[in-house]
Amino acid sequence: MGSEAFARWAARTEATLDRLLPDPSLEPRRLHAAMRHATLGGGKRMRPLLVYAAGTALGAAEALLDAPAAAVELVHAYSLVHDDLPAMDDDDLRRGQPTVHVAFDEATAILAGDALQTLAFSALARAEAPAQLRIDWVDALATASGATGMCGGQALDIDATGHTQALAQLQRMHSLKTGALVRAAVRMGALAADADQDTLARLDTFAAAFGLAFQVRDDLLDIEASSEQLGKTAGKDVAQAKSTYPALLGMDGARARLGELATSMRDALAPFGARAAALAALGELAVRRSH
Amino acid sequence: MGSEAFARWAARTEATLDRLLPDPSLEPRRLHAAMRHATLGGGKRMRPLLVYAAGTALGAAEALLDAPAAAVELVHAYSLVHDDLPAMDDDDLRRGQPTVHVAFDEATAILAGDALQTLAFSALARAEAPAQLRIDWVDALATASGATGMCGGQALDIDATGHTQALAQLQRMHSLKTGALVRAAVRMGALAADADQDTLARLDTFAAAFGLAFQVRDDLLDIEASSEQLGKTAGKDVAQAKSTYPALLGMDGARARLGELATSMRDALAPFGARAAALAALGELAVRRSH
Repeated sequence: MGSEAFARWAARTEATLDRLLPDPSLEPRRLHAAMRHATLGGGKRMRPLLVYAAGTALGAAEALLDAPAAAVELVHAYSLVHDDLPAMDDDDLRRGQPTVHVAFDEATAILAGDALQTLAFSALARAEAPAQLRIDWVDALATASGATGMCGGQALDIDATGHTQALAQLQRMHSLKTGALVRAAVRMGALAADADQDTLARLDTFAAAFGLAFQVRDDLLDIEASSEQLGKTAGKDVAQAKSTYPALLGMDGARARLGELATSMRDALAPFGARAAALAALGELAVRRSH
Repeated sequence: MGSEAFARWAARTEATLDRLLPDPSLEPRRLHAAMRHATLGGGKRMRPLLVYAAGTALGAAEALLDAPAAAVELVHAYSLVHDDLPAMDDDDLRRGQPTVHVAFDEATAILAGDALQTLAFSALARAEAPAQLRIDWVDALATASGATGMCGGQALDIDATGHTQALAQLQRMHSLKTGALVRAAVRMGALAADADQDTLARLDTFAAAFGLAFQVRDDLLDIEASSEQLGKTAGKDVAQAKSTYPALLGMDGARARLGELATSMRDALAPFGARAAALAALGELAVRRSH
């Protein structure tokens, strides 16, 4: 299990996004082009892969998972567009391409992000699925995206700039900023298979560990990459005096934490056996990825 | 019919928004405070009033209309926060209060707007209503808010800056930028009463005329106010060389257009008789308002 399914799911995601996004030949063309620039042709599609991996593990058809997979990616894409704005992280490049406000302009980037968020909920509302499932998806995605989730985590991150955070604070910030959407991805996939509360809770344990592991690995990569790459003095985190897992736990401590999280993921998936092979493979990737 | 019901509905809207918005004493406090600053204690609540007026005209209970009324206002509020940003209209004041990016900061304003949009969909997903109705509300609100509605109209408005628009273009821009959300408000109210397609279509004719009338009146006020108020040389529209109804039709032509729209609204509501008294009163307000 792994790369073949992942490639197929990534292709399904790309096709669904292309179908959902507004026609770039129609007015307002600049907005439509910016929305496509932000969404198509890039990214690991980690969140959509989690939707497909969780859903198919429990027996959901891939076609039923297209809408929630695309919706969670649309929320992720909108958040990147807004995070990159000059008033936020002020990033010019993303995945080697100019960010939306650089390729277009700031006003268009704000609007494109707004419209991408709306499109996520529109995609769920119009999915070919029972009304109760669609509304459960909307609820899960909204809970994970707003003040109680991603936006809340982003605000905590801004509030913490220039301060040292304790481990509990750092963990809370990441659990909202990136963890909530990862958990929603897994939950939306499981909901499509009509999972019971026990199954949802077990998969949520996996997803929470996944989100945290992804972040610890991110912090480690920021340091490892900086010391390996000639001419780059230190990671961005260190330069910005941001609290990170290595800063609070040391490199060895952070690596040990990553190992614990890998164990948590395996334990949570054990009862599912081979059905959870794709989820397990994604968990391995989160722990071992090199970029 | 009129002021008593309107005051009650505005109070219900305020109470629902207060209940939905995150607790300002909890972290992230700055984000929560910004969301409340943007939403509470101001505005005409025109869109919520349309939800209640349309819904109760067809027999829906007021309590069932609280969620869609608050949701449409949350989308309106988020759009104002983002429109006021320096990269957009760069406004410092709204309703006599500092705008969100002035009272807080730009990053918080971007995030607060994002989280307010999410909260609108969350409110609908969690409403005490049948799943099919909730999903119909989400669909109506999303269609009206994104690239196919409000954001699309905003983008057309930006594209048109510095150009003269023909009447058809101007009308299309306004029908998306403000009209779509007004129509969604009426539609969401009517959906709560399980309205049939004929009723939805008739009320949509009313709502489309309402949205346009509101805008024509806005354009007229911009000029009338400027000539009446000593020391103010010209309206903002003229100064920015924006296409407006008076600019394209003349003052008399714009007033005549307003009269036609008032007739359209009355005609569309005629079959409902006295049940539509509140909608009719709101239509009158749109045509005659002085601020």
